Parts: sequence; C-alpha cells; structure tokens
Amino acid sequence: MKKYVVLAWLVVATGITMSAQGGEHPGLIMTQEGIEKIRASLGQVPLFDATLAKVQAEVDAEIELGIDTPLPKDFSGGYTHSRHKRNFFILQKAGLLYQILEDDKYADYVRDMLFAYEAMYKHLPLHPQTRSYARGKLFWQCLNDSNWLVYVSQAYDLVYNYLSADERSRLEKNLFRPFADFISLENPQFYNRIHNHSTWGNAAVGMMGLAMDDDELVQRALYGIEDDGLELGTKDNDGGFIKIAGQKAGFLANLEQPFSPDGYYTEGPYYQRYAMYPFLVFAQALNNVRPELEIFDYKDGVLLKAVSAMISLSDADGEFFPLNDGQKGMSLNAGSVVSAVDIAFHFGGNDPQLLSIAQAQGQVLLDDAGFAVAKALHEGERQPFTRTSINLSDGPDGTQGGVAVLRQADEAMTVVFKYSAQGLSHGHYDKLSFSLHERGEEVLQDYGMVRFVNVEQKGGGNYLPENASWAKQSIAHNTLVQDETSHFQGKYEIGSQHHSQLHFYDTSRDDIHIVSATDTNAYPGTGLQRTMALINDAMTDKPLLLDILRASSDTEHQYDLPFHFLGQVIDTNFDYKTSDTLDALGRDHGYQHLFVEATGAAQKDNTRLTWLNNKKFYSLTAATTGTDALMFLRLGANDPQFNLRRAPALMIRRNARNTVFVTAIESHGGYSAVAERATDARSSIASIKGVHDDAKYTAVAIENVDGMKRLLIIANADTRDATEHSLRIKADDFRWQGPFHYTPQ
Amino acid sequence: MKKYVVLAWLVVATGITMSAQGGEHPGLIMTQEGIEKIRASLGQVPLFDATLAKVQAEVDAEIELGIDTPLPKDFSGGYTHSRHKRNFFILQKAGLLYQILEDDKYADYVRDMLFAYEAMYKHLPLHPQTRSYARGKLFWQCLNDSNWLVYVSQAYDLVYNYLSADERSRLEKNLFRPFADFISLENPQFYNRIHNHSTWGNAAVGMMGLAMDDDELVQRALYGIEDDGLELGTKDNDGGFIKIAGQKAGFLANLEQPFSPDGYYTEGPYYQRYAMYPFLVFAQALNNVRPELEIFDYKDGVLLKAVSAMISLSDADGEFFPLNDGQKGMSLNAGSVVSAVDIAFHFGGNDPQLLSIAQAQGQVLLDDAGFAVAKALHEGERQPFTRTSINLSDGPDGTQGGVAVLRQADEAMTVVFKYSAQGLSHGHYDKLSFSLHERGEEVLQDYGMVRFVNVEQKGGGNYLPENASWAKQSIAHNTLVQDETSHFQGKYEIGSQHHSQLHFYDTSRDDIHIVSATDTNAYPGTGLQRTMALINDAMTDKPLLLDILRASSDTEHQYDLPFHFLGQVIDTNFDYKTSDTLDALGRDHGYQHLFVEATGAAQKDNTRLTWLNNKKFYSLTAATTGTDALMFLRLGANDPQFNLRRAPALMIRRNARNTVFVTAIESHGGYSAVAERATDARSSIASIKGVHDDAKYTAVAIENVDGMKRLLIIANADTRDATEHSLRIKADDFRWQGPFHYTPQ
Repeated sequence: MKKYVVLAWLVVATGITMSAQGGEHPGLIMTQEGIEKIRASLGQVPLFDATLAKVQAEVDAEIELGIDTPLPKDFSGGYTHSRHKRNFFILQKAGLLYQILEDDKYADYVRDMLFAYEAMYKHLPLHPQTRSYARGKLFWQCLNDSNWLVYVSQAYDLVYNYLSADERSRLEKNLFRPFADFISLENPQFYNRIHNHSTWGNAAVGMMGLAMDDDELVQRALYGIEDDGLELGTKDNDGGFIKIAGQKAGFLANLEQPFSPDGYYTEGPYYQRYAMYPFLVFAQALNNVRPELEIFDYKDGVLLKAVSAMISLSDADGEFFPLNDGQKGMSLNAGSVVSAVDIAFHFGGNDPQLLSIAQAQGQVLLDDAGFAVAKALHEGERQPFTRTSINLSDGPDGTQGGVAVLRQADEAMTVVFKYSAQGLSHGHYDKLSFSLHERGEEVLQDYGMVRFVNVEQKGGGNYLPENASWAKQSIAHNTLVQDETSHFQGKYEIGSQHHSQLHFYDTSRDDIHIVSATDTNAYPGTGLQRTMALINDAMTDKPLLLDILRASSDTEHQYDLPFHFLGQVIDTNFDYKTSDTLDALGRDHGYQHLFVEATGAAQKDNTRLTWLNNKKFYSLTAATTGTDALMFLRLGANDPQFNLRRAPALMIRRNARNTVFVTAIESHGGYSAVAERATDARSSIASIKGVHDDAKYTAVAIENVDGMKRLLIIANADTRDATEHSLRIKADDFRWQGPFHYTPQ
Repeated sequence: MKKYVVLAWLVVATGITMSAQGGEHPGLIMTQEGIEKIRASLGQVPLFDATLAKVQAEVDAEIELGIDTPLPKDFSGGYTHSRHKRNFFILQKAGLLYQILEDDKYADYVRDMLFAYEAMYKHLPLHPQTRSYARGKLFWQCLNDSNWLVYVSQAYDLVYNYLSADERSRLEKNLFRPFADFISLENPQFYNRIHNHSTWGNAAVGMMGLAMDDDELVQRALYGIEDDGLELGTKDNDGGFIKIAGQKAGFLANLEQPFSPDGYYTEGPYYQRYAMYPFLVFAQALNNVRPELEIFDYKDGVLLKAVSAMISLSDADGEFFPLNDGQKGMSLNAGSVVSAVDIAFHFGGNDPQLLSIAQAQGQVLLDDAGFAVAKALHEGERQPFTRTSINLSDGPDGTQGGVAVLRQADEAMTVVFKYSAQGLSHGHYDKLSFSLHERGEEVLQDYGMVRFVNVEQKGGGNYLPENASWAKQSIAHNTLVQDETSHFQGKYEIGSQHHSQLHFYDTSRDDIHIVSATDTNAYPGTGLQRTMALINDAMTDKPLLLDILRASSDTEHQYDLPFHFLGQVIDTNFDYKTSDTLDALGRDHGYQHLFVEATGAAQKDNTRLTWLNNKKFYSLTAATTGTDALMFLRLGANDPQFNLRRAPALMIRRNARNTVFVTAIESHGGYSAVAERATDARSSIASIKGVHDDAKYTAVAIENVDGMKRLLIIANADTRDATEHSLRIKADDFRWQGPFHYTPQ
C-alpha cells in the first residue's frame, strides 16, 4: 500500500536513485513521501523541530571534534567501546540530517567515517577481549557489532544517493557484506538462536540487505542460516542454550517464539525494551521496502501488541518492573522506547494515548514515524495514558503461564505477579513471586540485576558474579523457598522446561482485582498456589494487598517466605533479638548473601511489622503460629566487591507439610519532616485469619480496626465461572458462583 | 513609631476596646491599621487569598468535627498530644479568621474551646507521663504547654473584643494566669534557663501578659524569675545544665546568650527554626504593644540577623544542615520559618530576596507581616535568593568559634565546617567536623539525630538512646577521633567549657574559598588544625574540596578519620578483604554501633575510593602511607530497635604523634540508567601530596590527570593579611602575603 504512494511520488520528486533491484533510497525509515512532508513542515511542528535542533547541535559538535575510529580494545564503558558506539548513533543521525536539511556536510561526514571503517575493517582481527561466547571485531561481542550495523545500514541508506557507484561498491564489498557475513555465517552460535542477541543480528543483516538490495542477506535475516553446524546443548555466557532441537531461527522465528500472543516478551520488559528497537526498525524497513510481507500483521499483529504489553509493564513513573535480569531506572524514556512508541503510533492506528507517552519522552524519531507523532501532538490529538490491571500470557502460543499486573485506585497500589516460564537465560528462579508498588515507588522490591551497565570499573560493565549467586536465586524474591534451595535447584536446564499455570484472573469487580496461579515443578512433590487480591474498599484508605500462599506436600519441609521491604523498621508486635555479630543465613542459593540481623518468634495469631519509607508508613500483617520463626535479614554478606545494595528483608520460616501463608500488606498515612507530623502511623488491620483450607477451598477472614469484616474464599479446584460453590464455615453457609467469593462477613 | 500610626487610625476605626492599661485588641500580631488594609484588599492579593482559603477550609473542617479537649494521657505522636497540639493551632487560626472575615462563628469556636479548657484546667493534675524534667499538664512536658500558651494568647487577643468582660475575667482567672504561673513560677527549672525551652516559656508568659495587659507577666517574661531557688549543677533530660552561675534569665537574656552577634544560634539551625517562632512572634507583639523597647534593634538587630543566618544554614533545596541534634528534611518550608521570613520582611526593611523564599513556601501569615509579603510579591518586588559563602561566629560576643559555609559555583558544592562551641545540651562532640553537599544532596553526611519526632511507636517520638550513644559521638561525624574516645571524653560538662578557634576565613578569591580553625581542648595535649579549601578552577569540572587536617601531640595516638559517604562502592585503588561475619568496631564512644565490613591497607602514596550516589560519581583521594589501615564500616551494630540507618563509612586509621591527613573529594560525571551511560566515571585527580609541614607552614601539591599542578600553602601561625611569608620547597622559593598561598605550581 505504502509502496504505491511512494511510486506516485516518484513522478514529482527528483534525484531518486533506483538500485538495480528496484529499491529506492532512502527507503528504510524515511520514505520519499515522508521526506517531502518533513521538509515542507520545518518550523511548524514544535516537538519535531525541537528534536531536530538538539540532534543537529549534537551532530555538529561531533563533526567539529572530528572522526575517530580507534583500534578496538576495551570492554563496555571503556573508550574504544564508547567511541564506536557513539559513532554509529551519530552516523545514523547525520544521515537523517542530510535528508532533512539537504546539507552536504552531513553526507560528507557519513561518507568519510564509513571509509575510515572500510579502511580498518579489512584487516581487523577479533576483538582482543575474550570473554564473549561470540566475540565481535569492533566490540567485545557480536551483539554490539550488530548494533553498529543496524544503525549504519540506515545511515548508508540515507546517503546512498550522495555516494558514487564506485564508493557504494567499495563500501559494500569491503565493509558491509563482510561485516554481515561475520556476525551471521561466522558466528551462527550468536546469529542462529531464539534470543535478543540474534534479533539484533538478524535485523542488522536484514537491514543492510535492504539497503544494499541484497536479497540473500534479507532471506538470511528472515529465516536464519539453514545449516548452522551447531551442536545441541552448548551454552552462552549467561548460561542460556544456544541450540535447541527443532527450533527455527531468523527474524520471523524470533518474532514467533519469545512473544506470546498478548505481546509479552519472555525475557521481560528490560530486555524487551532493548530488543524492540531491532524488531521495530527492521519491521518498519520491511514494511516500507517489502510491504507484501505485511510484517505488522504477522502473528496477529504481535509487534504492535508487544509495544502495548511493554508499556503496561512499567510503573506510574514509566519505569519498567525489573522482572528477570533488569536494571532499575530503565524507563519509557529510553531511546528504543521512543522508537517503539513512534513506530507503533504511525503503523498501528494512531492510538492517541501513545501521544501522552511521546510527550513525556520529549523527543521523536527524525523520520516518518516521529514526524507523524509530533504532528498529531501539535494538532492536539493527545489523550491521557491510563494503566489498568492486565494479564499477559507467556510462551509462543500463550500457554506457558504469564505475568499479571493488578492496579487499583489509579495506580495507588500495583502488584506485579509473575507465574511465567523461565524467560530464557536472563530468567530468575522466582515462580509465583511478586513485587508491590505505590505509584512510582517500590514497596516490596524485586532486586533486579547485579550489574552496573557500562560502568567499566564494575567488572567491565558486565554481569557481576552476584547476579547468579544472588539476583537469580529464589530467596532474592518475594516468593517461597523450600529447604533453602532455589526453585528447580537453581538450574536453568530444569527451569527452562517448566512454567507456572494460571488458575484464574478476575478484575471484573471494582472492589477486588484478583489473580491466582499454581506451580508444581519448582519443587517436585510440592504443590504451590498463590493468590493475590488487591482490595479497594472501605476496609483501608489505600488498596490492601491480600496474599494467600498454599504449599502442599506429603513430607515436611522448611518453608522460608521473605518480604523484601524497603525502609526503616518502625514497630513490630513481636519480640526479636538483634545479633551482636552478623553471620550469613546460609551457604548457598543466595542465602550466603544475607546477614541475619535479628531473630524472633512469631505471635500465635497475627505478626506485624510496620516500617517507614519515602515518608509513608507500611504494615505487613501475617497470620502466624507461635512456632514460626521470624528473621530480619540484611543483604551484603559474601560480597567481596560491594556489588550488592544493603537492602533489608523480613522472613517467615515455618516447618510444615501442608500450610497456608496469609499476609496483608498496606500503605497507610505518612510522615512530614517539615511539619514533624505522623498521620495514620498504625495499621488499620485488626486481624487476618485463615478460617478454612482444604483441596477445594481456602478461606481468609479479615477485620479492620473499625470492626469491619471481610471474607475471601478461593476455589482451589474448579474455576469455571458458572460453577455453583458452597462452603460451610462454622455455622455459616456461603454460596456463590465463580472462582472466588469476597463479601462482608 | 508603629504605635502612632495605630493611634491615628483610632480616630476612624470603630469598635476598638481599650483595656484598663491602655492596650487595644487585637494588637499582638494584627494592628488595627493592618486589619483594615487586609479587609480592604481581600480578593486582590493572590498568596494571601490562597492562604486564607486554605486556612478557612482547615478551620471549617475542624469546626465541623466539633471541639475535643481530651484528658491528657499520651506522649508525642499519641492522640491526646496531637489533639491538644492541633487545638492551639486551630484556635489561633480561628481568631485570625474572625478578624479578617468578621464572621462570629470563628469567635464562638474560640470562646467555646477556651471555656472547655477553662473547665478542665482548674482540676488538671500533672501529665501522667513522668519522663520529663519539667512535666506539663496538657502535655508531657512544659515545653508543649508553653507552645499552647504562645498560640492561645494570640487567639485570646484576636477575640478579646468579642468576649464579655465577665468571660474574659473567668478565662484569665481560671485558665490563663494559672497556666502562665505553672510554666514559670512552678517550673523555674524549665522557665529560668538559657535554652529554647525557656524561650518558649518566656514568650508564652509574655504574650499572655500583653494580651491580658498584665505587666507582672510581661516583666517576668522579659527578665525571668529573680529568685528561682534552683541549685547549680542539676541537669535536664538531654543532659543540659539547668542553672549556671551568674547567668541571667528571661526573654532578653535568651536573646543575649544563645545568639552570636552574627545571628548564629548556638544550638544550630534545627533548634533555631523551632526557637525563632517564639522569639519573633513575641518580638512582633512587643514591637506593636511596647514599641519603646525597640526589640528589633536589640543587640544591634540580632533577631533579624538571626533570620538571615538561619536561612544561610540551609542547602540549595532549603533543607537545614543537621548540625547538632537536627532532623533531616526540616526546611525553610516549616511553619515557623514562614513566620520568620514574613516578620523579617515586614519589620526588617523589606528585603526583596526574602520574597523568593516566601514564594517557595507558598503561604504567608494571615497577619500584618504576611499581608505585607503577599502584597510585595504580587507587586513584583521579588528578587532571586542567592546563597553565598558565609562565616558565622558563635557565642554571645562572637568569640566562641563558629560555623563556616563555603559555597562555590552556585552551590554546586557546599562545605559546612563546624568549629563552634558545644551548642548547649543538643550539641554534638564534633569539633572541626564538616559535611559536604552537592546542591540539595548530601555527599558526606552529618548523621543528624536519632529521633523520629512525633512517631509515637519510636520511643514516644522522643530522643532515642542511640542519639547519645551514636549521633552525638565524634565517630559519627567527619572528624578525627583519637584513641577511640570522643572529644571531651563525650562529656557535656567538659565540652560546654570549650570551643574551637577560627584561624582564618577567606573567600576574597573566586578560585578558592578557604577556612581554617584549630582546637586544643577536644584532646588535651593534642593540637588539631583543619583547613578546608573549596577550589573552583580548571583542575576539576566541579568544585574540589581539599581537606588538610593536622594533629600534633607529644605522644603517639591512634587517629581515626572517618568519611561518611553515601552510596555504593564503585572502585578502589587498594585491596581490601570483606568479613564473613561482621563484628562491631569497638565497645564505646559510638564505635559499638559500627560493623567492620572490610579492612585493607592503604597505598603508600594515594589511596582512592570512588562511589556512586544519586546518579553521580564521587572520589575521595587521600595522601596515605603504606602503614595506614583502611576500614569500610556500616552503621547498625548494637541497635536493638532498628533505630539507625544502615549508612556506610570509609575510615583511615593511623598511629602517629604529629601527622597531616590530606584528602581531596570531588564529584565527577554521572550515570544515566535510561541511557545506560556513565560519563567521567573516574577521578580527575592524579595525585595529592603533603610536600611540607612544620609549625609555620603546611604545603600540599595536587596534580590532575591532565598534568595541571597546584600548590596550596597554609600559614599555621601568623595569619595577618599583611604578613610577608616565604617558604622554600625543594628548589623552589615561594613568597606571598596573607594566610595562604594557592597557585599553579
């Protein structure tokens, strides 16, 4: 469709070079139609003009500095790494400026730098750093080389017409084609996988294929290398499998496999944010150059759904939930998300809510998509972006568990509940774990990853040892740990074969949003079921989280349930004794990283901790027995390089076969250091109590300090909505339809 | 002067009641002239109108709730405490609303509540909580009872005319006069001191004296109780002396003693903020009712200077430096500072910079002073408020040391250097300590106090045991500790007899602001001299702190120098070994609260730590010897109720007689979690070195990574500006005038 429009423009536009195969240039991220529109609108579309001015200033400063293509030497964060990384960003931007401003100095700059690379690349050996399973040439890993090619293919396309046929021929022969072959044919262990690394590789090869009109490269990008000669069972640096029997490769397979039909990306939002750029920019180029592929309709429009899913996995401040390996602070403001939002807007039906995110980002792409966003914003089409509860399936066909996000009261409280598959090599052993957020702040944290990305002094900016020994382990999450051993024994080979299972998800009522899931594989012989209800009614001022975790086993186990709260202890209703000297909690599975700050015995009915964080009070009330042990833990043991944050946790330890952990967590009141005033500094929950538990039903009673009572009954077996349930608790009979019953008592 | 204006207004104003002694009502914080102006301008002065609307909504809600004067029972943070506290605030506000809006419902509310108190007070015993050295009746301490009376005296004055003579007589006889006598005559240990407690007491008695036209009370307020019967040497709850030989009492003595001629309040800005309200509101009332006292000119205008000094002791965000006992987060937005700023503006020459602070506060007093501020703001008279370097003397005559604040590059870096007197009972043992700030953020912290003010669960909201055992101790500060013993052995009796001494202070050059001070009393037999230079030149991107600390003794000592950095360790240039189990650093003087996380040996020349905090990198480079020990410390040992924050520190330990600690601290670069980019992640200091040290001169050489060199020579003895100095270092001769020499090498 687009193509016909472009062809129509050919009649009036001048200076368009058609390559031998019929592709016009530029054509990947800018179309002729788009360029004309942009040029005609300069000075009239504020956000586009502002971005243009900023990019122009940035590129002009680089041109002033001069071209530097140093001999590759450093890890991430080091000079040669940073310089080459900066070069590819600037090349692409200079290409855009050439097209928009029609100033030859930008094309000259691109040409000169490309020839500097051409001169170097011919003789370039492997990068001297040997840590990667797939070493690059410009960078220490093929991944970064692929980043380079994704951007440089755009730059090349943008100045294609400016270059002579001879110049193009030299670049393609000496630089681009060998470069594309190196990251694909010579590194199938990198290129031919289902992995974000391969997606970058595929997009790099494919986009350069489109720019060069080299169909062999495009085919290799879309469908992978047919005979890669890889052995089954080899692993990459992160412990991920490189080849799995029967698995296809190439861009389309990478679209097929890691995305669920809901658009959830199995590695989690942090890596999705990273992977979305090659997915979308290559899709944009394919849509422009090979419209017959209908790439945006592929798998029922999964690419556009993925953008929605990714956005829904961010908090009220737009920061991504750090599921699996994820760096905290990464947000919707990332450059790759600017691309995702602009492309999704332009190619996905112009959703006016996306304009709110674009406005917050404060920049747009300097291409057709970005222009469309800036123009729509200027024309006042923006609508507020609202995040609501959502349930996202995991797995290629959506049957491998998922992630549910419960949101109440305009994100006053948000629960992120993970019952997904392993999430490839960046996955954590955190079945049925959750994190709790109050608007943009963490209440119960997911630690995220142990890595200071691009901080060279911290292990070259790469993953640190504590990522595996702590961040991936079960005890690092708000989930149950049996016998001091992580889920699947912390083994990727086992974990990657399993997933948890949705029991039910229901957000049809305003007063309660609820999700329940099960897992039978994390600990063979132990069945786990966890239900999270985010209750928004008169019981509490802010939404209350009710957490019901059942463990069922034929044999007795030690169950440890940590809550990774953030902040300072204000009060407890139990006695505890702090330790004069601090020892580690255990020796392995992450326990070696936790100091035991204090131990105590639980109350025989309700155990409570109140803490203060970010000027707000929080209380956790747990239904306990007098034999439960309580521990205050502090992260930081066996941390020889200070890689871990000194975060606290409260842990409930219980020895049992079948048991139910019932916990209520609330945010209440606040503290003003200026007014020196504490408001509602005490929990509003008077008691919580498990009042029934068997294979069919679990029931929990809550009462608040004003005497208001609620009863929540969960159907543990049948969850069909139409099922008629009945349960007698003491003298009362309860009857209802559907998977749960929540009612005043 | 004001009075004559008021008298002129009497001719045209109606309904003014003159009391027997000649005072008109209202007259304390509102004058007849002011009331007329305010009434005539309603709806025309935005900030005044906005404050009025907010206060009206607040008071209307309270009127709706109804009057509650519960039987006193609780500590701070508990219900009865909070309720009575809220009552006095609302009473004063209701009085203001009555005058401004002329609506009788506010006067009725004040009258009804006053009579509720009148009914209760007659029979009220001492408050049941027995912790205070001066128990109150409505509250657990006379201090809070005095707060009540300061506000209620205003409320009474504001509705005076509305009450019948009989009503006034009953209130004065049964409530006000007994109340004033109780906090003064019956509690001289509270009332008759030099202390912020007494200031509140004096103002309470004095303001009620003015409201009642009771000259005996006014005299008692101004001059104290002549024969208080107190014994020398008794102490209060905080360990402060109650009576000191020869010391006067009363409001004027409290103005005389704790304020230096520069307006520095010896307890520090946190308590000054608290004390400023009674100082200024009573001064305002005296100025209105007893203009012949010329209270704002007292001690060369010290009250107005004090407001300036207090503001200068806040960071770029307006938060007070937590010198001595001070709660972090307390700021210029505190209600008492709103009063201070409005009163200082109105009675102190209408400084237009103060309007910037008032605008940030977003509220004004609903009286003459607040109206003047709001009107000036509305008329566009505001000028930007700029904080600059300042040196404030301590002591009644300005000869007891002081506090210097060095600021460079528009507060890019701020050093707070404390060489003051003890600061009364809230003082810390922190001679020659400092804290470092980057705009509104702490880089090297002063811990502040261990208290959760008004959080009832934390020890009734009062000072916690760790305030004495940790926060007051020397090791809790960025200062030198000799032989694991706090300054003055941590004894108030000794500390309160001594002060440090200014050596020189010089901010005449743009490239270096410098202060130097000495102490010979913290450790008898050991002379300490510390020089802090905040250097803003081409050496570093942001201002560099150079810290030169000399210790001189005839005998060998263990010198510990901690740096309380905030954030996460990024890199060191020395080896260290973390501990598998954590033990406390020592047994006493605060050492018992520090865990030893790691130990290492210093490099033989320069030892460096780089850390990351709030997305910025910081480096500390110390000139060390190979025999210095280094320790990473973590607060939190022997903390049985989790009262302490888990803050880190790096400590240099050196055994020596005479030695110089030379340290450079810099902020450099930053980290973006969104861009995943680290900039300037490494220190720009290549080396620092002590190149000369004797009784006359100390010289330090610095070189940055670009090879730029600087030399700083400090004159240790003569600092007269005109003195000609010369020093030969190796082959070079240096000649200069004045206390220091800073130059390219």
